[in-house]
Amino acid sequence: MELKQVLLSRKSCRSYTEKKVEKEKLEAVITAGSLAPLGLPMDGKPHLTVVTDPAMLKTLNGLFGPEREVIYNAPALILVSCPSSAPGIPEMNSACVVEMMSLMATDLGLGNIYLYGVCAGVKQNPELLKALAIPEGYAPFSALALGYGSEGVAPCKEFVPTLTRNDI
Amino acid sequence: MELKQVLLSRKSCRSYTEKKVEKEKLEAVITAGSLAPLGLPMDGKPHLTVVTDPAMLKTLNGLFGPEREVIYNAPALILVSCPSSAPGIPEMNSACVVEMMSLMATDLGLGNIYLYGVCAGVKQNPELLKALAIPEGYAPFSALALGYGSEGVAPCKEFVPTLTRNDI
Repeated sequence: MELKQVLLSRKSCRSYTEKKVEKEKLEAVITAGSLAPLGLPMDGKPHLTVVTDPAMLKTLNGLFGPEREVIYNAPALILVSCPSSAPGIPEMNSACVVEMMSLMATDLGLGNIYLYGVCAGVKQNPELLKALAIPEGYAPFSALALGYGSEGVAPCKEFVPTLTRNDI
Repeated sequence: MELKQVLLSRKSCRSYTEKKVEKEKLEAVITAGSLAPLGLPMDGKPHLTVVTDPAMLKTLNGLFGPEREVIYNAPALILVSCPSSAPGIPEMNSACVVEMMSLMATDLGLGNIYLYGVCAGVKQNPELLKALAIPEGYAPFSALALGYGSEGVAPCKEFVPTLTRNDI
C-alpha cells in the first residue's frame, strides 16, 4: 500500500482469529524493525524475541491474572529488548522499532497492537526473562502483538490533524 | 511511495539546503503525527510545537554552544511535548508521533532526523519553554527536524534484518 493508506489503516487490534501468521510475513515484519532510527546505537542495538509458541503465548496472555488478556490472545508477539543507555533511550528506540514493524504488519493485512504492559510484567519476572532467553543486560520495553484481526485491515481514519499545536 | 520504499528511503539527514518546507507538506507531516498509537491518552495527548522562525531555529541550533549544530540548521523543527504520565509513556508516545511524521516527510521528499538532545536542552531552560509556548505541565521529549536534504531522498538501505533475535 501507499504510505498514507497504511497510516490510515493502522489501528490497535484487540481481537484475533486463530489463523497463524505465515513465516514470510513474520520475517518481513521483523526486517522492517531493522529499518528504525536508533539513538546511541553504540550502547547496543535492540534485540527481538519472536514468540509463536502457544504455551508461552498463553503464559504471557495471563501474566496479570485470568481476567485480563494482556496480549489479546494474538498468535504472535515480538518483544523488543534494549540494553541500559541514557534515560529514555530504550523506550524511544523500542518504540521506533515497534512502529516500523506495526506499519509493515498493517501493509501485509495483519492486525497488530503496540504493547508495553506485557514488557513491564516480563521485566519483573526473572523466570520469564530466562524462559524467553532475553540476553543478559537487556530488558523488554515495547512489544508488538500480531495476527489476523477479527475485523480485517482497511482505512479507518481520516487524514485530519487531531493533536494540539502552536506555531513559532 | 509504497510503504516498503519509504522505509528503505528513510535515513537521518544531517545536512539541509536553505529551501523552506512548503506549508502543504508541513501540514501533511503534522497530520501524519496524529495517526500514531498512544499509550494512556487519558493522561493527555502529545502537543506539537512547529518552529519555522529563523531566529528561534538559530537559538535552538546553538543550544549547546557554537560548535555543535543541534538541529543541523534544518529550516523546520517539530517538538513533541507530553504531559506527565506513567514512566516511559512520554518517551514512547513522542517517539511514535515522530516516526509517523518522519515517514510522511520521507514520502514527500523531505530530509528529516529524529532528535532528542534538543528536547533535553529545552526542558532544562525555563525561558525557552516559555518562548516556545510549551503548555503548562508539558515537556518536549522527541523532535523531528526537516527540510530539503543536501542529498535528496532515495532508497538507501537493503531489506535485510540487522537486529539480533531469538525465537520461542
